[in-house]
Parts: sequence; C-alpha cells; structure tokens
Amino acid sequence: MDFVEDARWFAPTAEGGQEPGRVTLVGAGPGAADLLTLRAARALQQAQMVLYDNLVSQDVLDLVHPDAQRIYVGKSASRHTLPQEAIIDLMLRLARSGRNLVRLKGGDGYIFGRGGEEALALAQAGIPFEVIPGITAAQGAGACAGIPLTHRDHAATLVFATGHLRAGKDVALDWQALARPHQTVVIYMGIGTLPIICEQLQAHGLTGDTPAALVERATLPNQRCVTGTLAQLPQLAQEHGIKAPALIIIGHVVSLHAQLQPGCQTVAPAPELQPAP
Amino acid sequence: MDFVEDARWFAPTAEGGQEPGRVTLVGAGPGAADLLTLRAARALQQAQMVLYDNLVSQDVLDLVHPDAQRIYVGKSASRHTLPQEAIIDLMLRLARSGRNLVRLKGGDGYIFGRGGEEALALAQAGIPFEVIPGITAAQGAGACAGIPLTHRDHAATLVFATGHLRAGKDVALDWQALARPHQTVVIYMGIGTLPIICEQLQAHGLTGDTPAALVERATLPNQRCVTGTLAQLPQLAQEHGIKAPALIIIGHVVSLHAQLQPGCQTVAPAPELQPAP
Repeated sequence: MDFVEDARWFAPTAEGGQEPGRVTLVGAGPGAADLLTLRAARALQQAQMVLYDNLVSQDVLDLVHPDAQRIYVGKSASRHTLPQEAIIDLMLRLARSGRNLVRLKGGDGYIFGRGGEEALALAQAGIPFEVIPGITAAQGAGACAGIPLTHRDHAATLVFATGHLRAGKDVALDWQALARPHQTVVIYMGIGTLPIICEQLQAHGLTGDTPAALVERATLPNQRCVTGTLAQLPQLAQEHGIKAPALIIIGHVVSLHAQLQPGCQTVAPAPELQPAP
Repeated sequence: MDFVEDARWFAPTAEGGQEPGRVTLVGAGPGAADLLTLRAARALQQAQMVLYDNLVSQDVLDLVHPDAQRIYVGKSASRHTLPQEAIIDLMLRLARSGRNLVRLKGGDGYIFGRGGEEALALAQAGIPFEVIPGITAAQGAGACAGIPLTHRDHAATLVFATGHLRAGKDVALDWQALARPHQTVVIYMGIGTLPIICEQLQAHGLTGDTPAALVERATLPNQRCVTGTLAQLPQLAQEHGIKAPALIIIGHVVSLHAQLQPGCQTVAPAPELQPAP
C-alpha cells in the first residue's frame, strides 16, 4: 500500500482553534488485541485520528473508534512506506492543524520503536503528548511460547538488542556483551541477519549448543516457535520458512520451553511445522 | 501482615470434582491499574481466588471480582511473608483441591518475577496453567518518567538486571557486561545495594558522569524521578529518601528526561522533592 497524503486530514476543525492537538504515543503490544493495556485500549476507543505502523495487527486496529481516520505510515526493515523523518513531519503538521492524534506502534514505543525520537520531536515543537507503554514482543513470546525471560537457575540478566542492518551495511551489535553467559538475549528484527548473528555469538564465546528459539508472530493465533541450538538456528529458520516479524531468543531459559509450552493455552494450537519443500 | 493458612480455602467445592483447578499467572503491571492488559483485567474480574504479592497495588486489587478470596503471600527483598517454596506449595495444594486460582505478581512474572519457577512447578504437577504478561516496571518508568529505554543515538541495547543480594551476601552481577557503552541498564531491586552498584560500574569502566535516574513507585500518582549522574546516585537516593520499590536506570537515554518529562501527563504531578531532614 502506497502512502498518499490527503489534504482533508488538515482541514480546519469545527472547533477552529489555533491550539495544537495532543499526541498519544500508544504501544500496541505484540499482536493479540487483548494484550493491549486498558489505557491503550481507551485511547484507541476515543481516537479521532490514528497513525499506525505495519507491525500493528488487524485485531488491534479493530479496537479503534469506527469513525476515526486511520492513516497507514507503516515501515518495514528494508522497505519504508514513509521514512521516519516523514512520519515525524506528518505527525507534527497534523498536530499543528489542531488534530488530536494517536500514534500507534507495535510493541512498546520506547523499546526499539523509535518512540523516543517521536516524543522528542513533539517536545521540541511544543506539542502536548503522552506515552502509553505496551507489552513488547519478547514478553508476548515468553508468555505465549513458554519461555521465561529470566530464571534464577538460568539467567540473571535479560538483554534486548536489534539485528537490523545499520545504514544497510552491517550488524552493529556488541558481540562481546551479547555472548556473556548466564543471560537471556532477545534479538528483535534479526531474521534477515540470523546467520551473522549466530556466527558472531559463537565466535565471541557462546557455545553452539546454547539453547535458542525463533518465535514468529508471537501471541497471534498462527504463532510458531521453533527451538534448537544456537548453531542450528539458521538452518531451522530456513527449513521452517520463518519470516519477520520474529524474535530470536538465546539462552538456557529456552530449555524450559518443552515443559512450559503446554501452559500456553490462550494461543490456538500452531499448525504442525512442515519442512520447507 | 502475617500469613495464616485457612482450612476453608481447601474445602470441597460445590462441583466436587476431582480435577485440579487451573492457575492463571497474571502480570499485574507496574502499579497503575489501567496499565494491566485487557486479558489480565478479565482474569481478575473472573477470579474466584487470588494469591497476590506485596508489589501489587491496591488499584489493581480493586479490579478483582468482589466475591473472590484474596490471599496475601507477599514477599519483599529481606522479609518473606511466605518463602517462595511455600507459595508454590500452597498454590499446588489449592489447585489440587479443585480451586481455579489467579496468581497475581507485580510487573511481568517472567521478568524477575520468579514466574518461571512457579510455572515449572505447575507443569511438573500436571496442573493446567496459563501465563499473561504484564508491563514491567522499566516500561512503566520509561513511559511515565520520560525516559525512552532505547534510542538510536544513545542506546542500541537494553539490559535488565537485579541488584538484590544473593544468599544475603553479595551482588552477583556481571559488572563487565553492565559497564559496556551504548546501552541502557535498568536495575530492579537495587536500592539497598545502590552504593555497591555505582562503585562497581565505575570500577569496570562506566564514567561517573554517565546520566542515571532513580524512579520510585513508577506509574503511581506519587511516582518520583530523581536524575543525576552515576557518581551522584547514592547521595541523591539518600537526600531524597528514595525507597523500594524503585528502579535504577543508567545510560545516556536518561539525558532525554528533562525534555520528555512534560509529556508524562497521565501521572499526577509528583510532590516537590525535599532534601531529607
């Protein structure tokens, strides 16, 4: 879907005030609509205009007030429907035209959601705003795939990182820190660079038999979780055709998945995994 | 409040079935009741019996069905109303007596909530269970105190750790990993060991002028956020009488707080900070 700006979005409102509108940055959570917070759901129900990303699920969009104007500004790792700067520019112009906006972002806007950049732009422009946190994908995956993110016997530290390419070139991760023992590492947006990630973590000291998982579409009815070892992950991803959005979880907590998965009863059973043709 | 077990909790139910009850491990979020997820709120509204911790706020407890039996099993860092093993034992006995339970834990049960241990015990006992994630304190503090946990210019990695004493003796943290640059470090349960934490992080390479914050009672109306530098934190904590539950946030994202704090409009204004007498 291409983005086309519509002049009517900026038309003077009935109130006709010169005051800027108010922006609510809402974390849409990991996908399942009932994993939104009560505060976020209320913001959607009261919304007049919603700017949303491609990581926001249809179930979540269904909570938006039916009369609200919905504007898709989605971006994905390599294909930008609107670049971040244009999203911020649009948001500022809409707010200045008097519109109250909900800016809806997958997960939690302050965890790899670029919510900090958007909030700063609003603050610098003098536009009132509010931030509502959301369940981040790692939490959704943990609860719904049966992988506790910390556990006294397995992980005292929890690390979130992103695996996307920096300036389209390399993965700029602190491999030495990510390869430390006794921690759980969750990598967002890392499916495209999975072979590099697994290779580098092993080169920096993690053993190839470290338990690891891929969780695709966490919390959605078609969630899939594939577990194995760090060394096996790239092949498993290929065999099962794992696609973004998916999380990589690395650490001994993944070994608990086999026992805890049966507890994940709010998620519809995943289809049987078939080897890729 | 002392814990006293009540035989009526285990009395045969009207259904009289021999089937074990079902346990729902619910993340209560950071404190503000409207930061519960919709799924968690529904579980509380339908609950017959709730086992809850001392980090669960009164506002959240008010969402529990009025007829539900509430059992306080709270524990704090140094004073255990019920030790973890006893909580698990109680939970298993109640479930085996046919009770459907909600086990309500502050934050997210799978992030430093020992939810993994409780889920494993349930799985091993063959008791059906479900896990509902919650907004963890770091997310609540980030959104409501104006500190994005990640930001492209400041932090590519986000680390959660705990500062509580291990076996009552030492802080067993991986100082070398926590002192890496370009990351945000959030330490839970670290107020009691704050001087050690700040000293060790500096000894392992973080500069004393690294921006740092203490966020007390994140998301609650009496939330307080004190910012300064890593070197200043212990004195700031003392001057302002910061008490648990409070988070320590370390990293350059804290420098954004001054600009973003005005956006935190859903939290009632914090009382003016007064130096300790």
